[in-house]
This record gives sequence, C-alpha cells and structure tokens, in this order.
Amino acid sequence: MKGKRRSFAADACPIARTVDTIGDWWSLLIIRDAALGGKRRFGEFQKSLGLAKNILAVRLRKLVSRGIMETVPASDGSAYHEYVLTEKGQRLHLVLMAIWQWAETSLFAPGEMQGVLCDQQNGEPVAPMELRARDGRVLRIGDTILRRDLRTGSAPKKHRWSAKRRSPSKRSTALNATR
Amino acid sequence: MKGKRRSFAADACPIARTVDTIGDWWSLLIIRDAALGGKRRFGEFQKSLGLAKNILAVRLRKLVSRGIMETVPASDGSAYHEYVLTEKGQRLHLVLMAIWQWAETSLFAPGEMQGVLCDQQNGEPVAPMELRARDGRVLRIGDTILRRDLRTGSAPKKHRWSAKRRSPSKRSTALNATR
Repeated sequence: MKGKRRSFAADACPIARTVDTIGDWWSLLIIRDAALGGKRRFGEFQKSLGLAKNILAVRLRKLVSRGIMETVPASDGSAYHEYVLTEKGQRLHLVLMAIWQWAETSLFAPGEMQGVLCDQQNGEPVAPMELRARDGRVLRIGDTILRRDLRTGSAPKKHRWSAKRRSPSKRSTALNATR
Repeated sequence: MKGKRRSFAADACPIARTVDTIGDWWSLLIIRDAALGGKRRFGEFQKSLGLAKNILAVRLRKLVSRGIMETVPASDGSAYHEYVLTEKGQRLHLVLMAIWQWAETSLFAPGEMQGVLCDQQNGEPVAPMELRARDGRVLRIGDTILRRDLRTGSAPKKHRWSAKRRSPSKRSTALNATR
C-alpha cells in the first residue's frame, strides 16, 4: 500500500463503496456547498473552499462522472455552465445532516458559537435523527444485523460483509459492536 | 493550496469541522470496523483494511487524540491493548448508517449482491432514516435554516455559516438549495 490509493469500488461494503464514489473530503465539502449553500458555479465553489482550481476541477469532474453532480446551462443565460446535484446527489443530504448533528453535539465547546440546524417553518431546532425499525423502535449500535441480498430483493441470506476487496463472500455474523 | 492540507478545525461549519476531526476516509473505515465489525486490535484493523502499519498507526493515534477512540487493556488479559470507540465515537454510528442507506439505494446495480441493514430482533430491513422537525414533519433539502447560537443555548440569532475559515460572521441566509 504505502500511501497508494486503493479503490473500494468493487467492495461489498456500502460504506467503503461510498468512500470510493465520493473520493475525498474535499468532494464532501463541494456537495455541502451545493446542497446547503446553494452554490452552483465553479467560481463559487472555488471561493468558498479556497481550493486550487486544478484540484477543484478534478473533484467536480469526478462527482459528475459518478452521477452525483451534473452540469447545466447557467441560470442567467450566459455561456457558463453550472454544477447541480443530481437526484442521487441530493439524497446525500441526509448524510450531511447526520454529520452535522454529530458535530453539533460532539465538536463544539460550551460558549462557542455554532450553527444550529432549524426547521424553516417555525425556526425551532430539528429533531435528532435516529435509526428506527419498521415498527418505530429506535435502533442503536448492536441492534442491527447485516444480510446479503440481491439488489432486486429476493429472499435474504445471511452473509458477512468484508472490508477486503477479494473476499466478499465470508460467513455470516451479526453487526455487533463488542462493547 | 496546491495539495497542501488545510485544517478546518476552526471552521464554523460542523461538516468542515468533522472533516478535520475524522481526518480522512481511512479513518472512517477504521470507525466502521470498530462500530459495525467489532474489531478492536491493531492487527484486526490492519487485516481488514489492508493498510500499511505505519499509516494505520497514524490514523489510530489521531482518532485517539481527537477523543473518538481510546485504548484499553486487552480483553483477554494479555499485554496488548485494544482500540475502542469512546461515547463520542459511538455516536458516529448514525453517520455510518446514513452513508450505508445512501449507498444501498444509490451504488448497487440491480442483481448485484449487497448488504442490507436489518433489525436484529425480527430480521426485517430497517426503516430509511429521515430528518424530522420536532413535531414529526419530514424535512427535505431547503426545509432547514441555520441559526448561529452559543453552545450553551441562548436565544438564537440568524447568521450565515461560511466555509471560509476567517469569515465566520457573515449575514444570515436560509440554507436553501437553489434547485
């Protein structure tokens, strides 16, 4: 390995595959600027992130090639084009919100100014996100298991996901933290 | 900039601050292995990720220094120590789940084998996560605004968050995507 970037694209684990698709943290901040900051133009992203143009160009190109963003003609009718999130990219909104809420409770010291995510309708802080069972029970670490299934939705079989690229078919295990 | 890593630690945006705290995608995969895979030992992480030992050591050290993981004596009484998530680290579970659910719906082709996150109690797939208002309304992109507030919870004032490090005090705006 030694610093060489491994691709997780063929990985069975959705989290590893996401890592491969989004690419790096800069790309997540580009998605943030598009989803939460309403930014659309190359120059807007560049100004917001303070990122070198060539690096930003590579990141945007990758996001487009992975179907997370797409280019559209500029909304003002000029010759420029703009970058907007596809529907797939817009669905990353919940990932951003989960990160936001974690940071709200974990990364700001008492007395520090911080952004608080509020409901636009009434200005009240939003509710903390939760993972729930279909019947509404809140699920915590250790309350979930993983089943391997075909994307089409045939009868589930228990299998274990593997972080390793070439051994995606090991035996089943519950997704339990051991603490 | 030119490839030089900027620190977002002082950034007003919780997402940027998270990027700085977690460090890189490798660290997210370490957190995944600890939270979902029950891994605790250096060798277990190394085997799972196929990551060079020196790189893994740096990542683990950073996660410990940021209060996301901590070292504890080995559970088998041997001289080794193990890495476990702190309570702050365990709260990242929801971020992993949000990524997981996005990937489930976005990154697997029909007919492809994928991991499906299920409720351990009844084996049913879990419900899709949602962002909700306090009164239960589902909130989507554009339904939220950001308020700057002191961590202690004094009366909220409207402000704009900024991705730029040195201008965290600009005027207010709704967090609306423009699409």
